[in-house]
Amino acid sequence: MTNELTVDFEPLGRRARVAPGTTLLEAARQVGVELNAVCGGTGTCGTCRVRVVAGQVTPPPPPPPGGGKGGEAERDALAEGLRLACQTRVLSDVRVDVPPASITAPQRAQIEGRERPVELDPAVRSFDVALAPPSLADLQADATRLRDGLRGQHGVVADRFDPLALRQLPTLLRENEWRVSVVLRDGEVIAVAPAGVSPLGLAVDIGTTKLAAYLVDLASGETLGSAGVMNPQIAYGEDVLARIAYAMEGEDQTRELQRVLVGGLDDLACELCTQAGRDSADVVEAVLVGNTCMHHLVLGLPVSQLGLAPYVPALADSYDLKARELGLRLASGANVHLLPNIAGFVGADHVAMLLATGLHEAREITVGLDIGTNTEISLAVDGRLLSCSCASGPAFEGAHIHDGMRAAPGAVEWVRLDGERVEYQTIDEAPPVGICGSGVLDGVAELRRIGVLGANGAMKAGSHPRVRTTGNVPEFLLVPAGEQESPRDLVITRKDVNEIQLAKGAIRAGIEVLLGEVGLETEQVERVVVAGAFGTYLDVGSALAVGMFPPLPRERFVQVGNAAGMGAKLALVSRRCRRVAEEIARRVEYVELTTHPRFVEAYIAALMLP
Amino acid sequence: MTNELTVDFEPLGRRARVAPGTTLLEAARQVGVELNAVCGGTGTCGTCRVRVVAGQVTPPPPPPPGGGKGGEAERDALAEGLRLACQTRVLSDVRVDVPPASITAPQRAQIEGRERPVELDPAVRSFDVALAPPSLADLQADATRLRDGLRGQHGVVADRFDPLALRQLPTLLRENEWRVSVVLRDGEVIAVAPAGVSPLGLAVDIGTTKLAAYLVDLASGETLGSAGVMNPQIAYGEDVLARIAYAMEGEDQTRELQRVLVGGLDDLACELCTQAGRDSADVVEAVLVGNTCMHHLVLGLPVSQLGLAPYVPALADSYDLKARELGLRLASGANVHLLPNIAGFVGADHVAMLLATGLHEAREITVGLDIGTNTEISLAVDGRLLSCSCASGPAFEGAHIHDGMRAAPGAVEWVRLDGERVEYQTIDEAPPVGICGSGVLDGVAELRRIGVLGANGAMKAGSHPRVRTTGNVPEFLLVPAGEQESPRDLVITRKDVNEIQLAKGAIRAGIEVLLGEVGLETEQVERVVVAGAFGTYLDVGSALAVGMFPPLPRERFVQVGNAAGMGAKLALVSRRCRRVAEEIARRVEYVELTTHPRFVEAYIAALMLP
Repeated sequence: MTNELTVDFEPLGRRARVAPGTTLLEAARQVGVELNAVCGGTGTCGTCRVRVVAGQVTPPPPPPPGGGKGGEAERDALAEGLRLACQTRVLSDVRVDVPPASITAPQRAQIEGRERPVELDPAVRSFDVALAPPSLADLQADATRLRDGLRGQHGVVADRFDPLALRQLPTLLRENEWRVSVVLRDGEVIAVAPAGVSPLGLAVDIGTTKLAAYLVDLASGETLGSAGVMNPQIAYGEDVLARIAYAMEGEDQTRELQRVLVGGLDDLACELCTQAGRDSADVVEAVLVGNTCMHHLVLGLPVSQLGLAPYVPALADSYDLKARELGLRLASGANVHLLPNIAGFVGADHVAMLLATGLHEAREITVGLDIGTNTEISLAVDGRLLSCSCASGPAFEGAHIHDGMRAAPGAVEWVRLDGERVEYQTIDEAPPVGICGSGVLDGVAELRRIGVLGANGAMKAGSHPRVRTTGNVPEFLLVPAGEQESPRDLVITRKDVNEIQLAKGAIRAGIEVLLGEVGLETEQVERVVVAGAFGTYLDVGSALAVGMFPPLPRERFVQVGNAAGMGAKLALVSRRCRRVAEEIARRVEYVELTTHPRFVEAYIAALMLP
Repeated sequence: MTNELTVDFEPLGRRARVAPGTTLLEAARQVGVELNAVCGGTGTCGTCRVRVVAGQVTPPPPPPPGGGKGGEAERDALAEGLRLACQTRVLSDVRVDVPPASITAPQRAQIEGRERPVELDPAVRSFDVALAPPSLADLQADATRLRDGLRGQHGVVADRFDPLALRQLPTLLRENEWRVSVVLRDGEVIAVAPAGVSPLGLAVDIGTTKLAAYLVDLASGETLGSAGVMNPQIAYGEDVLARIAYAMEGEDQTRELQRVLVGGLDDLACELCTQAGRDSADVVEAVLVGNTCMHHLVLGLPVSQLGLAPYVPALADSYDLKARELGLRLASGANVHLLPNIAGFVGADHVAMLLATGLHEAREITVGLDIGTNTEISLAVDGRLLSCSCASGPAFEGAHIHDGMRAAPGAVEWVRLDGERVEYQTIDEAPPVGICGSGVLDGVAELRRIGVLGANGAMKAGSHPRVRTTGNVPEFLLVPAGEQESPRDLVITRKDVNEIQLAKGAIRAGIEVLLGEVGLETEQVERVVVAGAFGTYLDVGSALAVGMFPPLPRERFVQVGNAAGMGAKLALVSRRCRRVAEEIARRVEYVELTTHPRFVEAYIAALMLP
């Protein structure tokens, strides 16, 4: 490797070795520096800003002739002495300073949800056996000896052996005086361990933004721990479409998305096992749920067909494969179970949510919402289940919002306006550095309530002392620089209000279309189940105030937390729940909104602020 | 990587990069230079001789005090200006000249055998399907669409999808206008190809010394080609025990033996497919047979327990796994089937031999021999099948013989002595450079016939003008240097005769013990089936003359070629044959010779030359 250049990322102390012409973003990805890249590296979002401290890089592009819009993000960065990592290519060894704001922040991961009790009936079972050692009078092969021992001592049939478990068997038998613990799955020996080791299970909700994982003792059903981390694919684009675009660049890119995601799952498994004083080699079964795109990416399936009408998944049925086929480092023959998908944009995570919330067996007319970048909506009525998906966009994750950020420390998460007084709270009571989804939603609701915003979302000049105009765009000064040590002004702009209108309008329109499908009036809805991280932290009052939710009494709403994760955990400990999940996926009547005759009308109506 | 040294192997033109202190043998292995190493790299066999042309290496060891035997092989090499690669460590960049004799020679691979007709019934089947493309009115997932197409168009159930086949499915469907060829195995879609591609199968007999492979069109049953190459593990020791010793050094060594063997299988598959104008990605099923050690090594199973009494295999039953689990590059979801083993030293290759020769359904009293480094012997009588294994040693492969070599061009393969006249033939009529197994066997038989050898194998001084003494050891000059362009004298020594006595004695004793087990006299044997490469080329008359075979009329002997390979091919095309193989393995009554009360007596008696 001659001609190799080094790129040092400070203050992280990581060094990449790359070919000349590599972008700083590619270099960063290579060494696990997770730069934000909301637009997927196309130079438009301006989130991957870095400072080139030493060395030669390609010059910034000249301003477009005639003063067009191209390169705006890059010029904004330049004005602060920064460059966009995705647009800057290395020409010599370079040293780069990464501002904290450019790194994927640790997010407040909403990982808890309401548990439903369920009978323990996992897909794997563990058996301790004690075998007689071989002798010249008893020359049975190790595998045969084990099989006979399992049948004789436990009455179970083991007619297959995972090849990696088989490789460990001879040594484990001899090192443990022929007493071992055997993990069986569907007649296959998938793992062998010293006698007495209990098998572990891992349930993971793979969100576009975050991963939420649960470690379960499969012998007792006890949850040993839970943890949430960012989905490391974030560095390749913040939403599903950006990931699809990246994956479509080629097979290597699809593999890379798969690899970094599995790396994140591996890290989570390790972390949880270490916390529980165990080893990830004891994890013998995992259940993964995610939207259809995450489901496909973790399996390494192509996703291009998910980005084009008619948005057909490669695979809808539930699926089992060995963890090692994914590169996931669990027990030798550990299995991964993926719940079924419903459609291209209603995935296994929604099936898990329906399973966990019991929507499939609801006796009341119930609307179920799993709010995220995509929001899945289901309607349970008279034994029917209708589902749709709407692109609510990343505004609730803080993206596309002027001072938006994810729900990380320092994010304004709660806002109240009392005349001229502005009250707010930040996560962890840290100095305010941005506004997260629930804060923006509160802000818009409050601005509308006190009359700063019109029904169409227009911000009225002079309606409040905090309303000001920056470059012709009206904005509301939520946090002045210096207040509570805020490093800069935090504002809610006219455009931010629009983003919230688009997002909440899509959700509301989806609900209305589903109700229309079965001829129901809004007020007939008896219960609204709100799931998802944002769904947990949002203020139902604010969501009602902006018209995101239909106007129903507050007590009909219930916030259930990470129901998808809870559903994954149910499927981990119960084969019956897996069968129920399959029934749910089969039963759901999918409603495609993009081509629905009533959607556009409903959407336009829902854009207004009540 | 500072401190890295280069080792150039000439005239092969390969360069290894190694740490100081690496042996030349390790360096050679690293870059695929397959040096002979009969002893497995312990410095005793002297077969890995090389010439250090430039650079610094460790000095040869001093002669042991008191003139002991240690370092003999090294000193012999030094006398010719050579060093043993396994005992010589690099201290600087070095250049090494590799004499042709030190490289694993291409061997005359005996790959053909007698075919038995069998009904075509392979484990995989291929179906062409034409599907309707998805639309907004038909949003079925690709996998569901394919499954329904298979059921509707062919009435077959595909309820599982190999993950790699699934990854290819979306693109293949769209690139081929939704018309594809689907390979099904046991309800699982294991491969997808453009419509009309016929599925291929690969059968391989993994010998300790050579690999024999057959490529079969699984749609027609036609054999498209066959090829034989050396087992690349040869570089790690020539016999099973040397391989076991190497594998026992650690898991990395076990992996390495697995890796080089699979590399050899990959190369064979590629070669055969290229010859047939096909691609190894079309190979959807493979059957492997080999002795228990080869079986274990190809699976990456530990073999230490095969090297210690009571010689218990890790796995005896037939076994199926994905080719990719072995690192074998065939079709995406290609399967590998391994026939069952009988015992630690009677492996799947013998089961295949019994299957191919029909010994399991023989109506006559039949002895079956598969002669190799280990010789497996079976006796079929009255519906019973008894089997044993004897260590016949590598003499028949030309090892441990003074001028021995494998059956490669230039090997003396046939010898007749007529008074003082010596007649011989070499393979390919090339100038004589050594003597292969059949040549040595002929030589010993003829020397005994004309009275040069006594019944105990002693060579009588003065019994023939060609008998001479070199360093107190009597030897027979078979080919004088210069005759037929022979580069040196080729001799049969007293020790060579002993090696043949030991080898043939073990085989004969095994036969006698099996006959004794069922109370039969030798002359009751109605048929003797002789299989294996050496078994094909040996002269039955010579084998009778030295007493390797029991004294029976010539017409009771039949040489069947590579019956193990034929058996593998049967199992490739017929699931019924796989079931028969399992029945055979279950039925065989294994007789352990090492602890058998009558073996030693029979062995001593069988050492004599009749």
